[in-house]
Amino acid sequence: MENSRLPSRWDETTDVLVIGSGFAGLAAAIEAKSAGSSVIIIEKMKGRGGNSIISDGNVSAAGPLLQKKDGIENSPELLYNDMLKAGLGLNYPDLARIVAERSEEVLQWTIDYLGVKYKERVDQFGGHSVPRTYITYNQSGSGIVRALFSKVKELGVKVRTHAYLEKLLQDTDGLVKGIRIRDGYVFPDAESGTPKCMKARRAVILATGGFANDIAFRVIQDPRLTRDVDSTNRAGTTAEALIEAMRICAAPVQLSCIQLGPWTSPDEKMYGVGPLFADYIVFTYGVMVDPATSRRFVNELGDRKACADAIMNIGTPCIGIADTEGIRQSGQIIDKCLKRGVVKSFKGLEDLAVAYNIPLEALQETIDRYNSYVRNETDEEFGKSILKGSKPLVNPPYYGVRLWPKVHYTMGGIQINTKAQVIDLSHQPIERLYAAGEVTGGIHGACRLGGLSITECLIFGRIAGRNAAQW
Amino acid sequence: MENSRLPSRWDETTDVLVIGSGFAGLAAAIEAKSAGSSVIIIEKMKGRGGNSIISDGNVSAAGPLLQKKDGIENSPELLYNDMLKAGLGLNYPDLARIVAERSEEVLQWTIDYLGVKYKERVDQFGGHSVPRTYITYNQSGSGIVRALFSKVKELGVKVRTHAYLEKLLQDTDGLVKGIRIRDGYVFPDAESGTPKCMKARRAVILATGGFANDIAFRVIQDPRLTRDVDSTNRAGTTAEALIEAMRICAAPVQLSCIQLGPWTSPDEKMYGVGPLFADYIVFTYGVMVDPATSRRFVNELGDRKACADAIMNIGTPCIGIADTEGIRQSGQIIDKCLKRGVVKSFKGLEDLAVAYNIPLEALQETIDRYNSYVRNETDEEFGKSILKGSKPLVNPPYYGVRLWPKVHYTMGGIQINTKAQVIDLSHQPIERLYAAGEVTGGIHGACRLGGLSITECLIFGRIAGRNAAQW
Repeated sequence: MENSRLPSRWDETTDVLVIGSGFAGLAAAIEAKSAGSSVIIIEKMKGRGGNSIISDGNVSAAGPLLQKKDGIENSPELLYNDMLKAGLGLNYPDLARIVAERSEEVLQWTIDYLGVKYKERVDQFGGHSVPRTYITYNQSGSGIVRALFSKVKELGVKVRTHAYLEKLLQDTDGLVKGIRIRDGYVFPDAESGTPKCMKARRAVILATGGFANDIAFRVIQDPRLTRDVDSTNRAGTTAEALIEAMRICAAPVQLSCIQLGPWTSPDEKMYGVGPLFADYIVFTYGVMVDPATSRRFVNELGDRKACADAIMNIGTPCIGIADTEGIRQSGQIIDKCLKRGVVKSFKGLEDLAVAYNIPLEALQETIDRYNSYVRNETDEEFGKSILKGSKPLVNPPYYGVRLWPKVHYTMGGIQINTKAQVIDLSHQPIERLYAAGEVTGGIHGACRLGGLSITECLIFGRIAGRNAAQW
Repeated sequence: MENSRLPSRWDETTDVLVIGSGFAGLAAAIEAKSAGSSVIIIEKMKGRGGNSIISDGNVSAAGPLLQKKDGIENSPELLYNDMLKAGLGLNYPDLARIVAERSEEVLQWTIDYLGVKYKERVDQFGGHSVPRTYITYNQSGSGIVRALFSKVKELGVKVRTHAYLEKLLQDTDGLVKGIRIRDGYVFPDAESGTPKCMKARRAVILATGGFANDIAFRVIQDPRLTRDVDSTNRAGTTAEALIEAMRICAAPVQLSCIQLGPWTSPDEKMYGVGPLFADYIVFTYGVMVDPATSRRFVNELGDRKACADAIMNIGTPCIGIADTEGIRQSGQIIDKCLKRGVVKSFKGLEDLAVAYNIPLEALQETIDRYNSYVRNETDEEFGKSILKGSKPLVNPPYYGVRLWPKVHYTMGGIQINTKAQVIDLSHQPIERLYAAGEVTGGIHGACRLGGLSITECLIFGRIAGRNAAQW
């Protein structure tokens, strides 16, 4: 690959260049600007806000104030332990600890400084020992992204869209001095736009997100994730910036740790509405069956990785099934799922079997057997925890959904230290290069817990911004 | 990091340069030389043979001839499926298929061409559906390495020891033209030896092995693997060549897939003799207990990863315990283990509890409970498969061993294609650079099956050698 040389003339100069306009990039820009640096944010897409803007707006946090307010044991230590358990011990201890310890502070920052509003209730997500997840008022990451943009605008930071990071430019000592972009870039055409060189007097911050939608790159790490596997992310979550960082020898960390959502349907694009039915109703009160045999094949309440791997092993989408009573118990309303045709309703199991072309007799046996487990509160086959008060699946109409995993989040990325400096293959910081958010690896290890992405992005974005401004 | 420029003068020139003198490198050298190329093998250590020479000499293979000879279903398809199951689907299908399909041929090659002798019996290793592992007559990889060296010598290939690969040298088009070595290098002093540039008229082949002993590099991928975790490998299994390949943009594959052996003892160095007692006796006929509680904590017959992770979660070495009857049933002789003091014998559980400073009463309860599982042939706690004919642990003397995982094998590495060409971050082959063996990633996915390392090294070493010679 070609080497990057410094240009004889820079087209533009600023103190700090931030690449990416999601949670991490915006938080970094705010801190760098507040610390006295001039800042430009570069965004390759037409729209601002990256994948953050369509995220679910969940912020998990722990600390003494929350503990007191919510009246539950919710210490940073407990959160840290939950992270390492889910991460199968692959988490970088020092980075994970920062996330756990500063989570309360950053949640408070979004409220006090950004004016973000959260719902009253606190949710308990899978893998968390206690309820500690706060949800934005509009139930979307946009609730936070918009507040970040308001602040960015107020501070006078410019966001440049259609600007694609092509090269990180280093001097002969390895110092990152700036970037080459394609100005006027139209995703995904790598030849579009005009090359321009931008100088960063102080530092460059990579906040370019994950690579859930980069098929060529993700199959290197997990060959199952071909184009037959969709993603819950926006189109722009591709790996070019991560690859460019690796080209200048940023150390890659745990790139093969890629999270699949097991609750998604191949009958709609991206995240969609299927997960509402699958995650909250099928997994808890219903069953998933292999369409070839009509048999269950996994504990439906297993963790994301276990369920997604099991579905992929079948080789075709499985069928998620629940009944009216399950929907009632969940308290969820699935009108949207039915209206979009992702979830279908059936008068009886016969109709369901015909619709999905699965063996009826075996299906009836599977449901009968599962119902006996519900009555005995013991799943003898897969050890699923039968929720107290669960009812056998005998109340039509029945509801069905086809389920096939989608790429949801990439835990791996480039290595950073606790100062958010990018670390190279010689275990040294690359001078004046910082990174934060999903482009970095190691914080979540093998599996990220729900609600910790926003927390992490904001915490490390702020660290990166503050440190970048200090050169 | 510094860029590599071509020297104005080469100190030495040959057709094909092979880096590493283990299974893969020697097989590559033989093929390249046989195809008409001049070949030099570079070995950084004082001793030749890399880690291969201390490996256990197990070769797993499948194919019609073996199937017929051994009278068992042993098809390449079945082996391929076993590999993908153990690899959790992360295996590169095309590469894994080559290993499965050419395994019989390469085993036959070691017999016919190299004159390697194997024992009569065929063993069944964990994760293999059928017995298909052949063991060299001297029960060591040296049985194959010595045969490879004889052939290499016969063909007139020179092996240069104390020669350390410092840089891969590319021309401005990215073509690999040669290497810079440190001649007279003394491991691990990176400043030792004299720089020399060697030109490869045709190609360079990386066969530099895994990085089980590279603490700084392995903790990037798995932060648990600090210097507190030993390795079963020889000292030279470090990552410099892998890192150098990544510096010229070779794509890293699944680097965080690092295999720990759960059967090793911290009371001896490297692989040692403990595994004989732990793997063949404790896991099958005995128990592992947490020294803090004297309780079991895992299915002792779980896969390597499950057991090793469970021990590491405890945070201190666990105690493996078996009785005389277990040793008898295993058919193993543990004199060496006792002589070296790694395994200790005790008249009763009291003595054992005192020696390891673990609670006696709880230990007695654990053993009583486990014995009831053996009698009922059902482990109600961890679901261990109780072998038919197993006996309760009631026959003194009892035997104990301290167990703590060691790094055994690194599944990840640089990306290659089916021609053994190294692939870069732009998904293109790096011209005239090949790789084979443990330095490559993707063949085994999340977990390598026993006996497939030698098979893989020889198959891809030969492919690399043949293709390198064709430029």
